[in-house]
Amino acid sequence: MPKYKYLGKATQKVDALERVTGKAAFGADIHLPGMLHGKVLRSPHPHAIIKAIDYGMALKLEGVKAVVTSKDLPSLEDARASFGGEVSIDQEHLRKLFLAHDKVLFEGHPIAAVAATSLEIAEQALELIKVEYEVLPPVEDAFKAMQPNAPLLHPYLYPKTLGQKPKNPGNVATIMFHERGDAEKGFAEADVVVEESFETAMVHQVYIEPQVDAAQVEEDGKVTLWTANQGIFNVQSQLSSILNIPLGSINVVPMEIGGGFGGKIITYVESLTIMLSQKAGRPVKMVMSREEVFKATGPGSPGYFTIKVGAKKNGKITAAYIKMIHDCGAFPGGPTPMASLVSFGPYNIPSIKVDGYDVVTNKPRVQAYRAPGGTPVNFSVESTMNVLADKLGVDPLKFRMQNYAKEGDYMVNDQRYNRIGVKAVLDRVVSSSHWNTPWEGPNRGRGMALGFWIGAAGTSSALVLINSDGSATGVSGQVDLTGTRTSTQQIIAEELQMPLEKVNVKVGDTDSTPYTMGSFGSRTTYSFGTAVYRASRDALAQMKARAATQLKVNPEDVEYAEGRFWSKKDPEKAVSWNEVARSTITRGEGVVTGRGTVTGLGHAPEFTAQIADVEVDPETGKVYVKRFTAIQDAGLAINPMQVEGQIQGGVTQGIGWGMSEYYYYDKGKLRNASFLDYRMPTSLDVPMIDIEIVEVPASEGPYGVRGVGEVSIVPPPAAIAEAIYRATGVRMNKLPMTPEAVLWAIKTKDKEREPVAANGDS
Amino acid sequence: MPKYKYLGKATQKVDALERVTGKAAFGADIHLPGMLHGKVLRSPHPHAIIKAIDYGMALKLEGVKAVVTSKDLPSLEDARASFGGEVSIDQEHLRKLFLAHDKVLFEGHPIAAVAATSLEIAEQALELIKVEYEVLPPVEDAFKAMQPNAPLLHPYLYPKTLGQKPKNPGNVATIMFHERGDAEKGFAEADVVVEESFETAMVHQVYIEPQVDAAQVEEDGKVTLWTANQGIFNVQSQLSSILNIPLGSINVVPMEIGGGFGGKIITYVESLTIMLSQKAGRPVKMVMSREEVFKATGPGSPGYFTIKVGAKKNGKITAAYIKMIHDCGAFPGGPTPMASLVSFGPYNIPSIKVDGYDVVTNKPRVQAYRAPGGTPVNFSVESTMNVLADKLGVDPLKFRMQNYAKEGDYMVNDQRYNRIGVKAVLDRVVSSSHWNTPWEGPNRGRGMALGFWIGAAGTSSALVLINSDGSATGVSGQVDLTGTRTSTQQIIAEELQMPLEKVNVKVGDTDSTPYTMGSFGSRTTYSFGTAVYRASRDALAQMKARAATQLKVNPEDVEYAEGRFWSKKDPEKAVSWNEVARSTITRGEGVVTGRGTVTGLGHAPEFTAQIADVEVDPETGKVYVKRFTAIQDAGLAINPMQVEGQIQGGVTQGIGWGMSEYYYYDKGKLRNASFLDYRMPTSLDVPMIDIEIVEVPASEGPYGVRGVGEVSIVPPPAAIAEAIYRATGVRMNKLPMTPEAVLWAIKTKDKEREPVAANGDS
Repeated sequence: MPKYKYLGKATQKVDALERVTGKAAFGADIHLPGMLHGKVLRSPHPHAIIKAIDYGMALKLEGVKAVVTSKDLPSLEDARASFGGEVSIDQEHLRKLFLAHDKVLFEGHPIAAVAATSLEIAEQALELIKVEYEVLPPVEDAFKAMQPNAPLLHPYLYPKTLGQKPKNPGNVATIMFHERGDAEKGFAEADVVVEESFETAMVHQVYIEPQVDAAQVEEDGKVTLWTANQGIFNVQSQLSSILNIPLGSINVVPMEIGGGFGGKIITYVESLTIMLSQKAGRPVKMVMSREEVFKATGPGSPGYFTIKVGAKKNGKITAAYIKMIHDCGAFPGGPTPMASLVSFGPYNIPSIKVDGYDVVTNKPRVQAYRAPGGTPVNFSVESTMNVLADKLGVDPLKFRMQNYAKEGDYMVNDQRYNRIGVKAVLDRVVSSSHWNTPWEGPNRGRGMALGFWIGAAGTSSALVLINSDGSATGVSGQVDLTGTRTSTQQIIAEELQMPLEKVNVKVGDTDSTPYTMGSFGSRTTYSFGTAVYRASRDALAQMKARAATQLKVNPEDVEYAEGRFWSKKDPEKAVSWNEVARSTITRGEGVVTGRGTVTGLGHAPEFTAQIADVEVDPETGKVYVKRFTAIQDAGLAINPMQVEGQIQGGVTQGIGWGMSEYYYYDKGKLRNASFLDYRMPTSLDVPMIDIEIVEVPASEGPYGVRGVGEVSIVPPPAAIAEAIYRATGVRMNKLPMTPEAVLWAIKTKDKEREPVAANGDS
Repeated sequence: MPKYKYLGKATQKVDALERVTGKAAFGADIHLPGMLHGKVLRSPHPHAIIKAIDYGMALKLEGVKAVVTSKDLPSLEDARASFGGEVSIDQEHLRKLFLAHDKVLFEGHPIAAVAATSLEIAEQALELIKVEYEVLPPVEDAFKAMQPNAPLLHPYLYPKTLGQKPKNPGNVATIMFHERGDAEKGFAEADVVVEESFETAMVHQVYIEPQVDAAQVEEDGKVTLWTANQGIFNVQSQLSSILNIPLGSINVVPMEIGGGFGGKIITYVESLTIMLSQKAGRPVKMVMSREEVFKATGPGSPGYFTIKVGAKKNGKITAAYIKMIHDCGAFPGGPTPMASLVSFGPYNIPSIKVDGYDVVTNKPRVQAYRAPGGTPVNFSVESTMNVLADKLGVDPLKFRMQNYAKEGDYMVNDQRYNRIGVKAVLDRVVSSSHWNTPWEGPNRGRGMALGFWIGAAGTSSALVLINSDGSATGVSGQVDLTGTRTSTQQIIAEELQMPLEKVNVKVGDTDSTPYTMGSFGSRTTYSFGTAVYRASRDALAQMKARAATQLKVNPEDVEYAEGRFWSKKDPEKAVSWNEVARSTITRGEGVVTGRGTVTGLGHAPEFTAQIADVEVDPETGKVYVKRFTAIQDAGLAINPMQVEGQIQGGVTQGIGWGMSEYYYYDKGKLRNASFLDYRMPTSLDVPMIDIEIVEVPASEGPYGVRGVGEVSIVPPPAAIAEAIYRATGVRMNKLPMTPEAVLWAIKTKDKEREPVAANGDS
């Protein structure tokens, strides 16, 4: 008999119908009485001092109701006062990111915003705003930024570091030094040492739905904000600190969200929309264009990596070293700490050394993109591991079978793994039909790579209401980014032993739901699912207590199954779930509200192994991904259909990152800010992605569930690069592996290796 | 030192600003994308058989998207099946009330509804619907309805009664016989017996905002309904049974409500709106006109009363008898049971006999109107008591001081009073400045009357969320009809000992809040306030537990006051409320959600004494109410300003009921369905109404709070009638006491008494 009735089943998404019929209400569907349309004036320069802004003409245009600039922001001093001195440099940067103060730091940096009675008028008004700039030379990439005479973005910036503070400010935002064991000794003990360098591009999450929001500010300053962010409570706290509004005076209402992938955790237009509404005294709506999204939201960080790994002849790794530099755009906040954790995560390595740098440049400030920092570093490390395996003369799989990490081993940092599934996914590769089906012939190659993502847990809360007709409603503020309503329905149905159709799931606003962290970091099913589980158990316990009263027995003597309560001592003494539910609204202990909350769950690490088969056209360099299998440890797949969808999405994005996507900057200006020029994979670029789910229960939380949303994006470039090597004999050390880049590599493979221009711009 | 910091204070209404600035969102403010406008075709006849409805032409009109008639209703059989045979005759009548089936039973009875792209088109379409009627003679009033050969409204109607079922169906819906003690013996023992007869008119609640709603039905049948009803959960359950939709598939969203007074408990257009949306596949909005409100919602019941009271020479009442007939309009459901309870409620009477009848007529089905049934019966009983006092030669106040009910005495039925404040309000009359200020001179008179309303309790639920910044939010589905958000804010602030501005209050929908009964029956502050109190205490207990963890002491050793937790054993060991709140979202036991629910509180009876001074113009019969004082037991007035406002509103409505308001029917057709012809009191018709609040704590619930919303409407006509008698020597036994009626009474006072036409129509 299966362990669960509703878990592990591919039940229909609860929001499937409203999604396919177009009834689901997204941000763009918001219409409020008297609503104005907002539009943002953005810098055409990547780096400049703002000398003056004159919006007098714009204000005179009929239909224009408000213009805001950084002058309209509450002062940092005021904000500091009301937050008890807690406005950090990060919060200051958040304020400067969404609205330039004295300097613009990237092309597209907001300078002013206009609210008008129509979008057209708002756009006209932008043209009437005169900005006087003193243009500065842009800092184009992390290398240039680190040069001693580089222009400074922030003349006050010193790196966050464990070591000594440098004498002068610079463009380095974070310096990370970490060593576990003795790397020097480890390399000395090695029989083989390889060292490789890599470079990856800036790419965007390219969610379908651009950023959109609407704000309404009441006379007493209370704000209602409708937004499509990944977390309503993080929006609330960001806005509270940016705009110096008490947390409780901001109600954030979640709309349906058209993709986020980490790029919709931070707020962009929200603050401007609120400021416009404050000034105009009317509701304001703001929708970003795709060009604005590309230029002025937060893409994934590009990185530069040097990896050194040493091993014994027997294949055992003795030491590893990584140096990484992340370009984090105009403000601090790159992925170095997470990338460090990902780097050698799948391996048990006695000695590890990490040098990491986050560097600011005149580009949009990077943000999380699905396992943030994971893909570039994994491409670099896994490619290096494959070079090493090659030198050792073992195949990549065998090499990994010799070195994988297991429970109790160290992570890259000084934590130890709890129960993890690296071996399980490797075993599944060994037995997989893909791995065991030959892929031979000219220009063909197969690659594999491991991927790791630690996943977050965080704080979650949920309520389970028992309605008078016996149905149940799960209530929370957890934004449904990835099918959360559906898994919530399954968990409640499982715990309350009632049909799925009797379980409703409602996502509420910050005013009416208990705090829960946003939907990111693979935390939703793991941590929020735990809150739902607890709330369901709590509701059931209360229902049992009410049944006990009705049966005149002790609560501990009440059994429950499938809609029926009965006395353990006298099984004939029974009362139905529906009867008890009906009675809650008329008598006894009253209405049942189950609550569940959780903080501080341990990690539930995600591991995946991916296998890619490619065929390379030697005439054009075009790489055809012909077969792809992702094997992933889900702990328990509550809804396998949703898990598969997640993994397929992640792999597709990983293929895009690996093969075709990049930001093409030219003197600090983005030249491909459209879907015509920014090349996402289409359905013709990816094969059917086969999924194999492995289930190694997580150490904590109910059911052993692990998050599954992120790790799938991590290894595709590495797996494909290995496959390209097997097909062509060339190793691609730069992303994306465009046809031009691959062709160039093939054409020059017998010549001395030299840097390859992935972007085709050399 | 005052007992409470935030209770008993006239704090500002939390919604004051948004109300006065027009930002508060009422039903009429709803705009949904693609929304259609609904309009209802209503019967011009008070009584007719519907032979045929042809809406073919209407459907052909461009812009018309749906037409519904009773044919579109799910069959009663289906409804019975899905509700397990629980569709009662009342539910059947509810279906027939909002949409005529085979017969129309009152002028304005809905026959069909249209949804179109504009209101104008919907109105045009109504004119294109052809209805073939067989007109029947209307049953115009309760007396005519009870005649043996009266036309029958419902050929299947037998009265609900304790006695025997009559042989034939009739128009009597309820028969009530009740006797406590031995009335015959009581009257035999009396030295003085008086008997009087009375008649009162049908009046309307005349809430400012007409009924309005909007519905959106999803592909899977899920309904979202925005409505301005007094209770969202009662709407949900009504619609579920009328339309045969599972309870959990109907989400009712409360809008701000512009008055209800009992008239917005039942649904009218809601079902039609949903049916139109189901058929059109688009959202539909419906707004009633004032004429529709007058003709086709539920006014207060008109009544006919005969009262007999006997007393000893010493003034002690020995027995009382009442016969009452209520005209309940087209469907059963009149106020006889409640009117019976009100009748002799303020008195301790050894023997009581009640004969009561609810009778159907061809008028709109009556509904609750603030202390439903209380005003007419109180006018009749209090007037009779004054006649009796007069005969006994004691003043009305002294007479009442001899006979008032007290704790432990019987109510009219066989229950006994818990703690009540009749004596307290009478004592306050004795000491009041009003009573002690002479009011003398020609054509002047003073009257007083007692009023009683039992009040409801019912089931209530609330949540109190503790936010990460230390603020708190009260969440519930309790519609704020009378300042509930404000009293909720005060209770939470009191219990959590935090400033009012740190407490938010949110009213949510049926999907996301635990069940709570509607806002009616004086139950809100009493019962819902109890739920808020419990939720606050629960939240505080959880906060204490978290503080205990942080202080490393036992939870029972934690003290709390004014934002600070400390250890009883070591008062220096302390942590702030805000620190604990902040920690809830990051560690430990997690987020704090306090919950409170309550069922089955005992009654918290409301008593009032009111004093009216009038001056009568003997030339015109016009009565000027020159001074009015209402003394009322509030148990504890959580917000005295709100309590005073409630009482002033109730008295004003009572003055309207007594002096000027009535439905003028002519052969079953309402001739004064507009504000021009239906005479509500204006500010020129009422003096400043002075309020004195007496506080006799209720037996149950926190703080001793009693409901205050209803009883104030009960005695104004009786008090004024007594004042008129003192001014003119004539006793008015019919409402309203219009100038014409008073003048007629004065002119004929020395002639034999004969019925006076209050309506001026004889």
